[in-house]
Amino acid sequence: MALIVQKFGGTSVGSVERIREVAKRAIRTRQEGHQVVIVVSAMSGETDRLLHLGRAVSPKPAEREMDTLLATGEQVTIALLAMALEGLGQKAVSYTGGQVPILTDTAHTKARIQHIASERIRAALDAGKIVVVAGFQGVDPDGNITTLGRGGSDTTAVALAAALHADECAIYTDVDGIYTTDPRVESRARRLDRITFEEMLEMASLGAKVLQTRSVEFAMKYNVPVRVLSSFTDGTGTLVTNEENPVEAPRVSGIAFSRNEAKITVPGVPDRPGIAHAILGPISAAHINVDVIIQNVSEAGKTDFTFTVERSDFAKAMDIVRDIAQGLGADAVQGDEHIVKVSVVGVGMRSHAGIAATMFASLAQENINIQMISTSEIKISVVVDEKYLELAVRTLHTAFALHGEAAL
Amino acid sequence: MALIVQKFGGTSVGSVERIREVAKRAIRTRQEGHQVVIVVSAMSGETDRLLHLGRAVSPKPAEREMDTLLATGEQVTIALLAMALEGLGQKAVSYTGGQVPILTDTAHTKARIQHIASERIRAALDAGKIVVVAGFQGVDPDGNITTLGRGGSDTTAVALAAALHADECAIYTDVDGIYTTDPRVESRARRLDRITFEEMLEMASLGAKVLQTRSVEFAMKYNVPVRVLSSFTDGTGTLVTNEENPVEAPRVSGIAFSRNEAKITVPGVPDRPGIAHAILGPISAAHINVDVIIQNVSEAGKTDFTFTVERSDFAKAMDIVRDIAQGLGADAVQGDEHIVKVSVVGVGMRSHAGIAATMFASLAQENINIQMISTSEIKISVVVDEKYLELAVRTLHTAFALHGEAAL
Repeated sequence: MALIVQKFGGTSVGSVERIREVAKRAIRTRQEGHQVVIVVSAMSGETDRLLHLGRAVSPKPAEREMDTLLATGEQVTIALLAMALEGLGQKAVSYTGGQVPILTDTAHTKARIQHIASERIRAALDAGKIVVVAGFQGVDPDGNITTLGRGGSDTTAVALAAALHADECAIYTDVDGIYTTDPRVESRARRLDRITFEEMLEMASLGAKVLQTRSVEFAMKYNVPVRVLSSFTDGTGTLVTNEENPVEAPRVSGIAFSRNEAKITVPGVPDRPGIAHAILGPISAAHINVDVIIQNVSEAGKTDFTFTVERSDFAKAMDIVRDIAQGLGADAVQGDEHIVKVSVVGVGMRSHAGIAATMFASLAQENINIQMISTSEIKISVVVDEKYLELAVRTLHTAFALHGEAAL
Repeated sequence: MALIVQKFGGTSVGSVERIREVAKRAIRTRQEGHQVVIVVSAMSGETDRLLHLGRAVSPKPAEREMDTLLATGEQVTIALLAMALEGLGQKAVSYTGGQVPILTDTAHTKARIQHIASERIRAALDAGKIVVVAGFQGVDPDGNITTLGRGGSDTTAVALAAALHADECAIYTDVDGIYTTDPRVESRARRLDRITFEEMLEMASLGAKVLQTRSVEFAMKYNVPVRVLSSFTDGTGTLVTNEENPVEAPRVSGIAFSRNEAKITVPGVPDRPGIAHAILGPISAAHINVDVIIQNVSEAGKTDFTFTVERSDFAKAMDIVRDIAQGLGADAVQGDEHIVKVSVVGVGMRSHAGIAATMFASLAQENINIQMISTSEIKISVVVDEKYLELAVRTLHTAFALHGEAAL
């Protein structure tokens, strides 16, 4: 008998019919002899409806009250799902975040889970019940309702799985697993049976729609095996887990990419200590995340300083850098919004020069100019002109023999 | 500085605009120097929407889960109202039933309030906040969400007023007070400035739409002055309170009536002890409420036994009585669904024969046949054919000089 946490998002519980399907699926798992805890989001559309109501009442709604408002979305779903389970003859009970309780800090609209009391859920499971828990929400030490922010239901599911020492956390979504790359770009993309947490984090550019980064970090920290599955079709999905059998040979798991990139270059800045901080300090102070950073070889005491930011932060970052550049006596700031980042992801990669060589050679063969390079233990990323995105992804997918037999 | 509890029903908070109006009204009361606690229902239509969802998921939804589902209705309103107050620059905080907490028994869908902890609300009031509390809901000792059943928000408001020793519990409705009779029957009906709890209970046939009987009983028990006011117009409404200055002369406050009546007669039953119990015992066991009961003078060892029930229970009651009558050797059971009850209500009435004499004389003058009579300390009720309802009400309204100067 295993303990399985199953998480269903808004689309999976978007109608009365779908809620009944979720109930049947959970009952099947129960009948296979497992204990089941289900975490659900608000029915699709409901959170937007509530947000709209809140903003109609007040242009800047109080965050504490916004959390109280939004938390009703999941509360509706847990009640309906528990009813559906009981209607099908399965003992069940629903708990709001406050009833579990899932204790968080006091940061309304983006609270962090601090502690989950598992006694109540364990008692219900031991009484043969399926337990239905509201995702996305908790309570602070004073009993105020909090919400966890974007992707919060995934985090609730993983955190519950960790607290209950569950055997697996199954995340049901609208895709049937994690792919070697985006099937819309490379139709021969193949579903991965397994992937490590680290790889999953690097695949975030693909995976963000599937699994929130924060929940993957949580799963990695507490070593909770996560399985990504489809709500609508059967299948074993992709298991995200720690690498249990490290292999000597490097393995390329997939080709990740991100369109949400922009590049800023400050040419001709004085090449002296502290220049990186002088430029990036104000950027960081403005809560803009910097990704790839490159400082070219110095030439006559001057250097070119280049970094990438998310495309949505580009205009703001340019304004800041223009101000700084003047103070530094740099030449005019150059910006480029038409770049993308393409990454080869896999464990044990950095120590194997062969991967990088293959990557650069394949791109060169297609005349794709590499603007920036960045490496980590498990990925090599290149920044290229956005017009090469699809070509680069397909070229690398082929070069690393990632094609499966069936396409999506 | 007084402490005022204000309760607004579903229509009064039925839209974003109306929620803002409620916020402004509460702020006016606050600015007059009072502390304000607001109790709200779900926005009109919301409870029905949730009920519909629940029944769509399961034909017999689990009651615990139905309470969890329905409680979201008020939770949405408290959050929106608190946002509206804060948007208008007024410090505010919302509490669900569970957050106050309002402790109830475990009877889901019809729970009874057992205790209200007032510390949290008091602290918020002392911090200058307007406190917004969800009506209709509470938590049982195990933290399960409960609801109070029909009219529950009125009960929450009165119970909160009692727990906080509030100076007044203002119930905002869609009428501007309690009238001497239903203005749709007698256009010259007059709004009462004051009425006692006992009179209010007897006026329930009019007042049920205004104030739930259960909340009046609660207010009487804890001596909480209740004021019935309109949400939409200004005015002082009707104050429902204990009689503080008892007067010698009897006072007729109003003419109440009920259409929801049916009469059952068992003629020719043996006139011996225990016959009432033999007939009414099984009726009571079937959870049917009996109102007026009359046993005629015995004639040759036989008597006629008559009683009234709510019209909706008539068919069920007839079936039960038919079975019993056979066993008692009674003649055929007679039923009449076409009767109504008309009552003259006022304190100090029974000891003043003049009231009854005036009542019977006026009805006789209009040729209205009285079928049954029932009296209590504060009312005289007669059962008449339903075709006489309007005539009887208008006749009595005139006979007791209840007309006001202005009509509704």
